Amino acid sequence: MTDFSKTRALFRLPEGVIYLDGNSLGALPAATPARVAEVVEAEWGRSLIGSWNDHGWIDAPHRIGAKIAPLVGAGEDEVLVADSTSVNLFKLAAAALAARPGRRTILTEPGNFPTDLYILQGLTRLLPDVTIRTAPAEGLADALDEDVALLLLTHVHYRTGVRHDMPALTEAAHGAGALVLWDLSHSAGAVPVDLGGANADLAVGCGYKFLNGGPGAPAFLYVHRDLQAGLASPIQGWLGHAAPFAFGDDYAPAPGIGRFLAGTPPILGMAALEVGVDLMREADMGAIATKSSALFDRFATLMAARCPSLLLLTPVDPARRGSQISFGYPDAYALTQALIARGVIGDYREPAILRFGLTPLTLSHADIWQAVDALADILATEAWRDPRYAERRTVT
Amino acid sequence: MTDFSKTRALFRLPEGVIYLDGNSLGALPAATPARVAEVVEAEWGRSLIGSWNDHGWIDAPHRIGAKIAPLVGAGEDEVLVADSTSVNLFKLAAAALAARPGRRTILTEPGNFPTDLYILQGLTRLLPDVTIRTAPAEGLADALDEDVALLLLTHVHYRTGVRHDMPALTEAAHGAGALVLWDLSHSAGAVPVDLGGANADLAVGCGYKFLNGGPGAPAFLYVHRDLQAGLASPIQGWLGHAAPFAFGDDYAPAPGIGRFLAGTPPILGMAALEVGVDLMREADMGAIATKSSALFDRFATLMAARCPSLLLLTPVDPARRGSQISFGYPDAYALTQALIARGVIGDYREPAILRFGLTPLTLSHADIWQAVDALADILATEAWRDPRYAERRTVT
Repeated sequence: MTDFSKTRALFRLPEGVIYLDGNSLGALPAATPARVAEVVEAEWGRSLIGSWNDHGWIDAPHRIGAKIAPLVGAGEDEVLVADSTSVNLFKLAAAALAARPGRRTILTEPGNFPTDLYILQGLTRLLPDVTIRTAPAEGLADALDEDVALLLLTHVHYRTGVRHDMPALTEAAHGAGALVLWDLSHSAGAVPVDLGGANADLAVGCGYKFLNGGPGAPAFLYVHRDLQAGLASPIQGWLGHAAPFAFGDDYAPAPGIGRFLAGTPPILGMAALEVGVDLMREADMGAIATKSSALFDRFATLMAARCPSLLLLTPVDPARRGSQISFGYPDAYALTQALIARGVIGDYREPAILRFGLTPLTLSHADIWQAVDALADILATEAWRDPRYAERRTVT
Repeated sequence: MTDFSKTRALFRLPEGVIYLDGNSLGALPAATPARVAEVVEAEWGRSLIGSWNDHGWIDAPHRIGAKIAPLVGAGEDEVLVADSTSVNLFKLAAAALAARPGRRTILTEPGNFPTDLYILQGLTRLLPDVTIRTAPAEGLADALDEDVALLLLTHVHYRTGVRHDMPALTEAAHGAGALVLWDLSHSAGAVPVDLGGANADLAVGCGYKFLNGGPGAPAFLYVHRDLQAGLASPIQGWLGHAAPFAFGDDYAPAPGIGRFLAGTPPILGMAALEVGVDLMREADMGAIATKSSALFDRFATLMAARCPSLLLLTPVDPARRGSQISFGYPDAYALTQALIARGVIGDYREPAILRFGLTPLTLSHADIWQAVDALADILATEAWRDPRYAERRTVT
């Protein structure tokens, strides 16, 4: 059982800040600065090139992947840390298409996280016979026909927090002969995930959100053990080779998940990610889910009472949502900026959505109370009408 | 003019080590630990998500690209830091093929750096009508015909250090109607490079070798200004979108080089790379090239006198080589390990090659003398025959 009175001290958070954006950039684990300094000063600085062998740099993609595996219900040989979520989506979607040669359709949702849609659109430019079909959640099962090679879905929606029924949709896709690729960016470390239990084929996920791996942390990918030998990465980089240091002219894929590596792993980012993952592995995902639900209920109840003009967009059923709460409001952008100015950090998403991440390891019920209090005051005083809160920044 | 009596102090190198592997992993700049700590502790830890705007994280790919530009003779709007060299090769090779739709051949060299060949082989699996043609250096001009869409070459060869004539080969490719993609992994920061002067179309390069960006540092890519609007990345990630924070469903490429971004930039790796690049920008590439030549001549002359059984593989003409020196020897692997055991760090490359990087900012003539002295002693005493030096490590 996780003692939440102690877990906040596992992170460094500035005084006076209520951080409700751990779903966008996870907070800094207290152990990260020393570990990153060790990698920079001792491993790179003193052991130099020898660290690839002596400090396990070369194994980092597999080692950290194996540590992420239990957080997503996967086997240790089924997860690899590599590249970005976007690049991993490209690799796995292309591999899935090649594995279903008679089928030329990829099915996904409209309003899916943009990079998921953009990556597929790029793939259809490269492979003009491939078609993207979109169907809203309730129409996905009907849209699965004999031409669908791949169903690509984000498990928890980035905007609304709506969570898909992974086992049911995976089963429906398999029933239609399609593979399924789950984007776990807003679920890994946020909600219990069981890729193995759902018999999922493929997945990708993000290192810098609920895994607290740091800005632009490397991403991860999952390939079901039984599929690995039959799938090929389109980005055949040297570290995915069966014998990279033989430096032969002809590519031969590494035997397992390693074939999905491309270039040299980013060691500084890997080091920070490993600290975040180690921390999440110590935590109890069941206890986290329970506390996330309690924080959600507290937030929703207080908002209904004190800020009724904001529309709750996230399902109240814990099984149907991730670990965030989103509200619609016409002036959501300015409202978000006014909140940030008071040290309550959430974020804004198009169109007109305030989004708050619920990270049980760092947030208390008092934090939620204070956040809603600030919001209620900003609304009552119309403080958000200050013109500086309307100024659009590059990153929202 | 660069004062080489002072430049070694710009790096942290362990006592008693002669580091001749800066062509594989550049040494740690003295300024890097503090800068990385600042990014971790102040920017991530205290400013959290706000750092994307407030500490220039979102601009890092463009900002650091613009700083690399003068090191490779490019304009500030022609270079972007992103992903790994392997992923960037994939993006630019695929973009080049799409821009030459009537041509279906990629021409390259046998024995090119493996990831360059493997990436092309992956591309032909995805696009089965595309063919890879290889020709040795002296046959490249003749192999350029009307079916060649792209000539892909590594400017300085990783094994031998042989440098191609970039202006002549670029002109030959253009004469045949093909685009050219230069892999600058062993040239950026090592030798003067003038992409603009050569009218080169495309290039990629590595951040962790002569740019001293740290293990697995992000890579860079170059696209000639006049080509940017006509080229599309096959990996259409959200940060390459014209308006990523509009979160629209349809991809629209960013107007310039930014369209070659894919996922969220790796900020810790970017921070370390920026320190390395800033350091190289302060140095005088002309003075570096002059000292590199002097170190090479010293190395070659001493070796001919004291270790005549090792065969020099690198051209003696400075214009025809990079900043490394390679030797062939049947027991090169064990010899390299025996040298490393004495603190002289070079590396081994298949087949039977000892490779030494020449980094003028950290190496003195005395270092070269000592390295050759150690080698001569290991040969004279046959110390390399110790069985532990024959044990193959994962990374060679």
